[in-house]
Amino acid sequence: MPIQFDPDPVVTRLTERTTEFVREVVIPAERACGGSVHDAPEALRQSLHKGAREAGVFAPHVPERWGGHGLDLRGQAAVFEAAGYSLLGPLALNCAAPDEGNMHLLEKIATEQQKERYLRPLASGETRSCFAMTEPAPGAGADPRSLRTTATRVPGGWRIDGRKWFITGANGAGFTIVMARTSGSPGDIGGATMFLVDAGTPGMQVVRDIQTLDEGFFAGHGEIVFDGCVVGDDHVLGAVDQGFAGAQVRLGPARMTHCMRWLGAARRAQDTALERAGSRTAFGSVLGDLGMVQQMLADSEIDIEACRALVLRTAWELDTGSPAAAQLTSVSKTFVAEAVNRVVDRAVQICGALGISAADAPLARLLRDVRPFRIYDGPSETHRFAIARRALKPYRQSLQGATADS
Amino acid sequence: MPIQFDPDPVVTRLTERTTEFVREVVIPAERACGGSVHDAPEALRQSLHKGAREAGVFAPHVPERWGGHGLDLRGQAAVFEAAGYSLLGPLALNCAAPDEGNMHLLEKIATEQQKERYLRPLASGETRSCFAMTEPAPGAGADPRSLRTTATRVPGGWRIDGRKWFITGANGAGFTIVMARTSGSPGDIGGATMFLVDAGTPGMQVVRDIQTLDEGFFAGHGEIVFDGCVVGDDHVLGAVDQGFAGAQVRLGPARMTHCMRWLGAARRAQDTALERAGSRTAFGSVLGDLGMVQQMLADSEIDIEACRALVLRTAWELDTGSPAAAQLTSVSKTFVAEAVNRVVDRAVQICGALGISAADAPLARLLRDVRPFRIYDGPSETHRFAIARRALKPYRQSLQGATADS
Amino acid sequence: MPIQFDPDPVVTRLTERTTEFVREVVIPAERACGGSVHDAPEALRQSLHKGAREAGVFAPHVPERWGGHGLDLRGQAAVFEAAGYSLLGPLALNCAAPDEGNMHLLEKIATEQQKERYLRPLASGETRSCFAMTEPAPGAGADPRSLRTTATRVPGGWRIDGRKWFITGANGAGFTIVMARTSGSPGDIGGATMFLVDAGTPGMQVVRDIQTLDEGFFAGHGEIVFDGCVVGDDHVLGAVDQGFAGAQVRLGPARMTHCMRWLGAARRAQDTALERAGSRTAFGSVLGDLGMVQQMLADSEIDIEACRALVLRTAWELDTGSPAAAQLTSVSKTFVAEAVNRVVDRAVQICGALGISAADAPLARLLRDVRPFRIYDGPSETHRFAIARRALKPYRQSLQGATADS
Amino acid sequence: MPIQFDPDPVVTRLTERTTEFVREVVIPAERACGGSVHDAPEALRQSLHKGAREAGVFAPHVPERWGGHGLDLRGQAAVFEAAGYSLLGPLALNCAAPDEGNMHLLEKIATEQQKERYLRPLASGETRSCFAMTEPAPGAGADPRSLRTTATRVPGGWRIDGRKWFITGANGAGFTIVMARTSGSPGDIGGATMFLVDAGTPGMQVVRDIQTLDEGFFAGHGEIVFDGCVVGDDHVLGAVDQGFAGAQVRLGPARMTHCMRWLGAARRAQDTALERAGSRTAFGSVLGDLGMVQQMLADSEIDIEACRALVLRTAWELDTGSPAAAQLTSVSKTFVAEAVNRVVDRAVQICGALGISAADAPLARLLRDVRPFRIYDGPSETHRFAIARRALKPYRQSLQGATADS
Repeated sequence: MPIQFDPDPVVTRLTERTTEFVREVVIPAERACGGSVHDAPEALRQSLHKGAREAGVFAPHVPERWGGHGLDLRGQAAVFEAAGYSLLGPLALNCAAPDEGNMHLLEKIATEQQKERYLRPLASGETRSCFAMTEPAPGAGADPRSLRTTATRVPGGWRIDGRKWFITGANGAGFTIVMARTSGSPGDIGGATMFLVDAGTPGMQVVRDIQTLDEGFFAGHGEIVFDGCVVGDDHVLGAVDQGFAGAQVRLGPARMTHCMRWLGAARRAQDTALERAGSRTAFGSVLGDLGMVQQMLADSEIDIEACRALVLRTAWELDTGSPAAAQLTSVSKTFVAEAVNRVVDRAVQICGALGISAADAPLARLLRDVRPFRIYDGPSETHRFAIARRALKPYRQSLQGATADS
Repeated sequence: MPIQFDPDPVVTRLTERTTEFVREVVIPAERACGGSVHDAPEALRQSLHKGAREAGVFAPHVPERWGGHGLDLRGQAAVFEAAGYSLLGPLALNCAAPDEGNMHLLEKIATEQQKERYLRPLASGETRSCFAMTEPAPGAGADPRSLRTTATRVPGGWRIDGRKWFITGANGAGFTIVMARTSGSPGDIGGATMFLVDAGTPGMQVVRDIQTLDEGFFAGHGEIVFDGCVVGDDHVLGAVDQGFAGAQVRLGPARMTHCMRWLGAARRAQDTALERAGSRTAFGSVLGDLGMVQQMLADSEIDIEACRALVLRTAWELDTGSPAAAQLTSVSKTFVAEAVNRVVDRAVQICGALGISAADAPLARLLRDVRPFRIYDGPSETHRFAIARRALKPYRQSLQGATADS
Repeated sequence: MPIQFDPDPVVTRLTERTTEFVREVVIPAERACGGSVHDAPEALRQSLHKGAREAGVFAPHVPERWGGHGLDLRGQAAVFEAAGYSLLGPLALNCAAPDEGNMHLLEKIATEQQKERYLRPLASGETRSCFAMTEPAPGAGADPRSLRTTATRVPGGWRIDGRKWFITGANGAGFTIVMARTSGSPGDIGGATMFLVDAGTPGMQVVRDIQTLDEGFFAGHGEIVFDGCVVGDDHVLGAVDQGFAGAQVRLGPARMTHCMRWLGAARRAQDTALERAGSRTAFGSVLGDLGMVQQMLADSEIDIEACRALVLRTAWELDTGSPAAAQLTSVSKTFVAEAVNRVVDRAVQICGALGISAADAPLARLLRDVRPFRIYDGPSETHRFAIARRALKPYRQSLQGATADS
Repeated sequence: MPIQFDPDPVVTRLTERTTEFVREVVIPAERACGGSVHDAPEALRQSLHKGAREAGVFAPHVPERWGGHGLDLRGQAAVFEAAGYSLLGPLALNCAAPDEGNMHLLEKIATEQQKERYLRPLASGETRSCFAMTEPAPGAGADPRSLRTTATRVPGGWRIDGRKWFITGANGAGFTIVMARTSGSPGDIGGATMFLVDAGTPGMQVVRDIQTLDEGFFAGHGEIVFDGCVVGDDHVLGAVDQGFAGAQVRLGPARMTHCMRWLGAARRAQDTALERAGSRTAFGSVLGDLGMVQQMLADSEIDIEACRALVLRTAWELDTGSPAAAQLTSVSKTFVAEAVNRVVDRAVQICGALGISAADAPLARLLRDVRPFRIYDGPSETHRFAIARRALKPYRQSLQGATADS
């Protein structure tokens, strides 16, 4: 079987239906919330879910057993890009972060009981979730080893104490997956455990909705305080002290699905720029006739094609469980996050005043929403460190400190 | 007299006082409006003016005859950078755009009567103004020759008809300087005239407050409709049909003062990043010990120093009326606008989650506010075109179409 | 059949054998000519051919009928990269430019008689060839339409007059494929024809060996004068007046095989840098522990992976005759040419003094040899123009002048 | 006395005479050595010196007492740029590296006797010199603290043992300034001493002419072995154990004079590109009418102006002994070295085939010759480290290891 790039016909049909659904249903719905997902009401979320079900595109990534289309990552690549063409698209298909990554994580490492209790309603869109990892300085940030939130043994369970912030979707989430230290000290490589904490559990409170540059995630980014929050042993997700390894199960694919969705946003920006360049006149020419505009348009096409090629390649490595997947995930996440920012920035430049208008075109919003992608799920610098370290391995064994993300 | 860079002691003292005033008075006032100048109330503007007067730093660029400190552009370079350290600083010193550029324009080409009526209250901060040039497509944008707003002769004056948008400070301005076509057709190089139109003149209406990515200008960016707006002959600013040449009087220095103010914003971003890098720990090191962070910090220092060197050089060319000033203004505007964006972007990256927080650090706001500077006052592409054209002149005479901005 | 990236086992084995052959035989042979292919003697070429045959890796791209392994472009991607690890590798495997592209061209559009006469000895390495397109200004360069060399009808054949330069491999070539204008005038899109001209034909003379920055091609780059050079009708390659279309048959794949070979050179440079970074100490650390070095290493890994992903994707489009192949070829050629230069430049920087030594490491040579790739086979600017034009097509029909390379 | 940029009339006249001398005498002489300074014969050096004396432009930087024009660094900025327009220009004016820096060093820290013996013939061009610092790994490279060459006490003097390489001008130098360790061990910050060693001193031998990418320095780069080389106490230059501090006296200005000379080379490249862009036609336009070409030309003008502004600023800081000089020297060296490479690279791209020809234009040579400037006199990474460290100082005291170059 030679190398080949033709997607499965099932994927092709799902991609086409998604493209049509986004164009016909999702983009018109952007007006309801000024394009901001953060400000989208719950009713809109539900109505979009209904639309996606009717269009036959709901939950493309979810195994059929849990009500989805069961696409592997290669299949998701095309469909998620189509969904990402609108910031509301992934929300509509129930494949937005952080829920999509959490579904994957639960499917891979949760007990059957946990799957019934947490995965089933999450996959159907009945509830939402969040993943609570990042902490205020000097806690876990780019370096997860700095983890300070603790879970201490109490009879029949664990008591969680600590503070998490920039937790996407925290506000209103039905449950939280929280990473806490069950052994060792801040700076240690291991000793973390994941817990499933239901909304309303005493001792857990969302204390703030953090205002950020981006507004592309439903319910925004919250700050959560755990103060003597006690959960039972059946709330441990995966194995005790193996939380970082468990999070890797989530992170690799989650990084790639971010890439896929944001690639759709980049395509939207580029199409907006192309439309403008094909119609607007300046200096006696259509904009698209001017060499410097052509250069920006061409550079964005190059960026988009390179992103797509890297994403497919990496999806294949992940789907086949290749040992090269970790390196390629870092490579793709870094390249795509930066490329997407370049594409949107060029589109803004080409569109001029329209590009910075917050109401007359989607670009100003996209410019804000794509910027944090170079920071979350590992800043570019952390990934570059990991990429270099892996490349150097055959040439030298003992480079400076490892990260949890190997 | 050899080349030398020591500023006049008067400038040094004014810079020090401005730095202190910004630190003690202006930055604390940012909280009142979340750092957004767009949302700052008129009362804050007046209270900041009062503070600047008391600190002896009000109107540094205004000739003494009109109540200011009479600094030339070299002097303004240091003081405006100090003011720009807060987005509210230029507003406080009454040296923000567009008023500052309008004062310069009026001082240079207005009649004595016009100066008394328009310049005096503007220089004192009693009133505000705007400069109405940009039009919706296919009107005047990057290419001013596309001007479509018309002024037609009526007995004793002119009737203005047209639509302007992205007019900074329009909402609430005491008067508007509007560029209108008095001869020729869209696409012609000449034929434009500037008019002074008082607020409340029948036929002129601010119809919309345009929401934009940036929020760094008082009263934001408005859309103005002129529909049979009649003004008398004494409202012509400069000569009839010489409007583009007149605008150049304003634009050269205005571009440089933008550079100076935004350089202050870049310095603020870099200082925020340095503070973070000097205190936050990750991967077992202080951030500032990590090579990739050092690289970003160093690149920003390099950008800032190159900006300062170019700005001073260009200020000197403009102050001395050198024929090289036009080229150096384009060079500086292009370099500084892009460098300032790079500096802020790096600071965001270094500060991570904090960098994209809209409340906990000034960076997310700065990222939004500096982006449009690569577009207004001539997009980078228009300036590059002009720079190349001037450089090619000795090598070939008849390159493609000229612009008004030569 | 889903998307998949595993190469055929035949390709894998051929790639492994090529890697071993290059390491064991080719790289040691570099010493014989200081690594310069330009200065390699004919005897070295023949001895390398012999070695490649013995290793079972000769002519991987040539159809089996003509003595090769018959790989498609996807297969060539891996093998050519392995060959390109030494500048002498493609020469050894008889898959270097321009012969490799000429073989492809002859195989596609030559008559059976022409194939026997020209393709057979070329595929076996018995003879060499060149492709004479580029002319001194104001003739054909980045813009092929400027073609000035003419072929005029004479009884039973054509008389060729003109001057070609930068013709790789001209000196000593057994035959030349020359592009000449058979109708129309310089600037016209069509009217070109390709001719096969045997070495020694009266009226054709290689007048100069052009010294260039690069020395990576056997026999270098020559200047050829055609002065009343008469050839028979059976020397027309393809159809009269269809020369540009014929050249496209050659150019698409030829651009990609260049990418594959240069990717091997980039990998060589990066491995040299990794070896240095893993062993050399500075500032109390191994170089590879310094963040700025890690950043360069990581950026090069990212560049290499993005190149590989794009090359495979484009190879598949070309192999399957997809209409997207033209756009992806331009995208890949532009990206790879620039990425390869970046990778080599970073390796030089990491290796410091050693990086610029012409004798102690391969980097100084590579830096010179990769630079022209951003110019030949279409400068990056020409490709960007073509990429933008294709992307704009759905948005506007009549953009400025087309090129032959659509 | 306000900030001002007008050079002294003496400097202006000297600059004009240098420009004319380079155009009339030096550039025509390039043919004699194919533009390569490395291959220039001694007779050419002497004949150019004669020409420079006749033109009144010899030794612009040398104090009048030693036969020069006594320009400060601000004055040198203009004259050295004019000289650098040809690679042979600085050689002609006797202001090329390493002699120019050595003259400065001797003038600052040599004893009167040493000045008479070494500085006088060096300033007059009667002899040449070299500065022997860099060692093969693991010796002194980017990090001078790794110094391994030793000087041990012997009666009445010192015995020097070690190996130096990439020593510019070593071959044929009348004397060598060699840095050797007189106390401490490799890795220590101090303990180095400079010695003046006459050609022919037993135990010192130039063992190799290192072939490098660049050929822009007279006599190239040599490898020197010291094996029991004994010199008397009067051959110590500066104070014992204070060699690194002494080298700083040389390095700051030497970095800036490199910038000045290479800026002239950049200007030469850009002028070559402008000439080409103003005359060559492609795609129905003069190249200079194409937007992507204009962008490259404009970016190079911007780079050149930013370099000039930074160089002048830094020259002033150095001339006035400002504490900011060290930081600005690092900033300028890093920016100029990279900018000069960008300018030459763009010129090559604009000139296409001509850009990579080694004979028909100066660009291929310049591309090779400017590349090492990003490595010698401190690689960009070392300077960025130093820049960041200085910027961080107010924010944190104890960052990782210092360098000798503070």
